[in-house]
Amino acid sequence: MRRTIGVQEVEDIALGAAVLGTGGGGDPYIGRLMAIQAIQDFGPVELATVDEMADDDWSVCIAMMGAPTVMVEKIPGGREAEHAFRSVESFLGHPIRFIYSIEAGGINSTIPITLAAQLRIPLLDLDGMGRAFPEVQMVTHNLFGITATPFTMADEKGNSAVLSTIDNRWMETFARSIAVNMGATAHIAAYAATGKQQKEAAVLGTISLAETIGRGIRAARHAHEDVVKRICMITNGFVIFHGKIVDVQRRTVAGFARGEAVLEGIGENRGQKMIIQFQNENLIAQQDGEVIASVPDLITMVEDETGEPVTTEGLRYGYRVKVLGIPCHPHWRTPRGLEVVGPRYFGYDIDYVPVEQRIKSL
Amino acid sequence: MRRTIGVQEVEDIALGAAVLGTGGGGDPYIGRLMAIQAIQDFGPVELATVDEMADDDWSVCIAMMGAPTVMVEKIPGGREAEHAFRSVESFLGHPIRFIYSIEAGGINSTIPITLAAQLRIPLLDLDGMGRAFPEVQMVTHNLFGITATPFTMADEKGNSAVLSTIDNRWMETFARSIAVNMGATAHIAAYAATGKQQKEAAVLGTISLAETIGRGIRAARHAHEDVVKRICMITNGFVIFHGKIVDVQRRTVAGFARGEAVLEGIGENRGQKMIIQFQNENLIAQQDGEVIASVPDLITMVEDETGEPVTTEGLRYGYRVKVLGIPCHPHWRTPRGLEVVGPRYFGYDIDYVPVEQRIKSL
Repeated sequence: MRRTIGVQEVEDIALGAAVLGTGGGGDPYIGRLMAIQAIQDFGPVELATVDEMADDDWSVCIAMMGAPTVMVEKIPGGREAEHAFRSVESFLGHPIRFIYSIEAGGINSTIPITLAAQLRIPLLDLDGMGRAFPEVQMVTHNLFGITATPFTMADEKGNSAVLSTIDNRWMETFARSIAVNMGATAHIAAYAATGKQQKEAAVLGTISLAETIGRGIRAARHAHEDVVKRICMITNGFVIFHGKIVDVQRRTVAGFARGEAVLEGIGENRGQKMIIQFQNENLIAQQDGEVIASVPDLITMVEDETGEPVTTEGLRYGYRVKVLGIPCHPHWRTPRGLEVVGPRYFGYDIDYVPVEQRIKSL
Repeated sequence: MRRTIGVQEVEDIALGAAVLGTGGGGDPYIGRLMAIQAIQDFGPVELATVDEMADDDWSVCIAMMGAPTVMVEKIPGGREAEHAFRSVESFLGHPIRFIYSIEAGGINSTIPITLAAQLRIPLLDLDGMGRAFPEVQMVTHNLFGITATPFTMADEKGNSAVLSTIDNRWMETFARSIAVNMGATAHIAAYAATGKQQKEAAVLGTISLAETIGRGIRAARHAHEDVVKRICMITNGFVIFHGKIVDVQRRTVAGFARGEAVLEGIGENRGQKMIIQFQNENLIAQQDGEVIASVPDLITMVEDETGEPVTTEGLRYGYRVKVLGIPCHPHWRTPRGLEVVGPRYFGYDIDYVPVEQRIKSL
């Protein structure tokens, strides 16, 4: 049975997806407003499971690409996502019956809802990461040989591009430079996949999980319960640090927001220090020089009292946060997965150790 | 009556186009070999005048884009041009009946011949510059409101892109970054134009002119006549300097070969110095600090004895050259033309004065 996404569900999905977004995935505020507006204008969005796709039904992901620092400043014009969607459809020569999210995160969980409402097409309850990652090839579909081609891009000025590449790493190179030229952000449609492909390659249930997290946060706040504990219960995550942000370095380089945050321990972490490095998303958390969690596991900062997720562009001196370590989807823990998104890909000379094992050994 | 381009005509066109190429337009050597091979494999190419186009016949230009310094090192794979051509055709949804050259110059005069032979499609006797220029929007078609969209690109690895932009200056930005990512050169198809549009916007007769120049050079050499004088007679050009190259600075920046050549006068220019600045093509010639010729007029260096044109990537210490100043097409001398390719666009704070007037006032 299909469920629908109305205004309350958008609120919950946006909140929960920001937890899964590990600091990235775009600004949740604008994305939420756009999705709510679309639902008010066009009605609720159907949420479909992958079982409702025929093996040869086509789906495509819709997202924004670029530096989240810039997305905050640039409000989409409204037709870019549809332009990107229609370009894929015309390239494929098949109607596309489902829309999906490429990643969990503020804007990239809600942009697909917005377009699904506008086009009255169901949204799939899955994504391509189970979290957010910064680069085009960092999608579970890529691990299963699904091509990002045709990769279509559109900006708010009316420019567009359709890219075909021999592999998804090349797509990252081409699309990134176009995104930079489009003013550091662009609407994209890519990774067209059939029902058969989605069943094998996608991270299933991500939208429901985001909604459950968001609803859990809301319920815990309402009941004055420990919000962060509730998040950990839903996500199988751990609080790996409790601290105050004392330094943030951030720069927008080659279309990415890169930098690091320094946290001074409070509570049981008093006297300790944590450094979190990010490239749009949080990548590595080190406590007093020791790695506590790393990609592909999720590292998310939430405000310690409210459980409100903090994006990398929202990091500010003085915020009191709890840092969560959340196990990633099993697809990412395979040798091929770690090749694409393991710590070494991002330039850290360490082996990946699952966060639950690191925690146990502390 | 249509004429045909066989092996001898390719030799002449390539040679003459390199004179019109003002130092740019790519390496004539590889382009000539490819065109000759194609004619040997598929037969001569029909050369059509614009009068043979119906008003609603479509044509498209085929070219290589990027730094000529790199083109010398990278031999095309053979199918890239066709890939770019077919992408435009499929985007437009019309068959394309004619191919044309975007610019005069070594490879960009012969790449269209190669594809015309392979596809058995006539080549138009016209181009979009009457010379070579470094940027996408520097095409007479642009002055008449013809869009470069759809602009298609393909590399030898199998990557491709289809770009649509709101104006041709944006196309330069997008396409340049893709060309850089494609390894600093790419095959492109763009500026699809109807017969009606070509009649108004193109520089007519460029292929015949290139052939006449090439044939003239060959005849003068054979007759031991003054080759450079012959070139000047055919092109209405002037020898503006006779000198020896004593310094060349060249760097490949953002997909362009930029730099300058310093010449020490010989013969009647003994004791004088000329500096020629280029961005793929020669832009400005200054003698002892005074501008003698500037874009959009053509500045071409040829070996003083043989009349062999010297490309910017072929510039070497010790070459004895004559520098030619050749009047550009009238389209470029309009206010709109000078906005797009005048000296100020390239960062020189001088007014354009036609080369024939500068010469007269010397």
